[in-house]
Amino acid sequence: MKLRVIVTLKNGVLDPQGKAIQHALAGLGFDGVEDVRAGKIFELEVAEGTSDAAIEEMCRKLLANTVIENYRIERA
Amino acid sequence: MKLRVIVTLKNGVLDPQGKAIQHALAGLGFDGVEDVRAGKIFELEVAEGTSDAAIEEMCRKLLANTVIENYRIERA
Repeated sequence: MKLRVIVTLKNGVLDPQGKAIQHALAGLGFDGVEDVRAGKIFELEVAEGTSDAAIEEMCRKLLANTVIENYRIERA
Repeated sequence: MKLRVIVTLKNGVLDPQGKAIQHALAGLGFDGVEDVRAGKIFELEVAEGTSDAAIEEMCRKLLANTVIENYRIERA
């Protein structure tokens, strides 16, 4: 079973990487980029029958830092 | 206009970060994780009317290293 976990910074948490990318794009001449937020994506291949609870626990324990990050699980 | 750019390593490119995560999950007792690939996601807010060509160019010039990475553009 394929799934992907998207980890993004919570709103209100500063994102210097995103800001740097935004400024770099402006420097390259791309106008109109109003905001950039950088995040992580993990593509997992897990055994069929892995429970939703187990997947949630993987996110909370390892993949995301829930103090500053949100995670979203998408099934492919 | 919101869009997201997903940057992943090409098939065949070694992904030590993904492997480390896979082993860490096994160490935490999560069985059945067969593969993990780590990637990046960029959430962009761009001006309405930004052309597809400009967005592609942002990806090729800055967001992705097309020698070893693929990118995918998703409109929200």
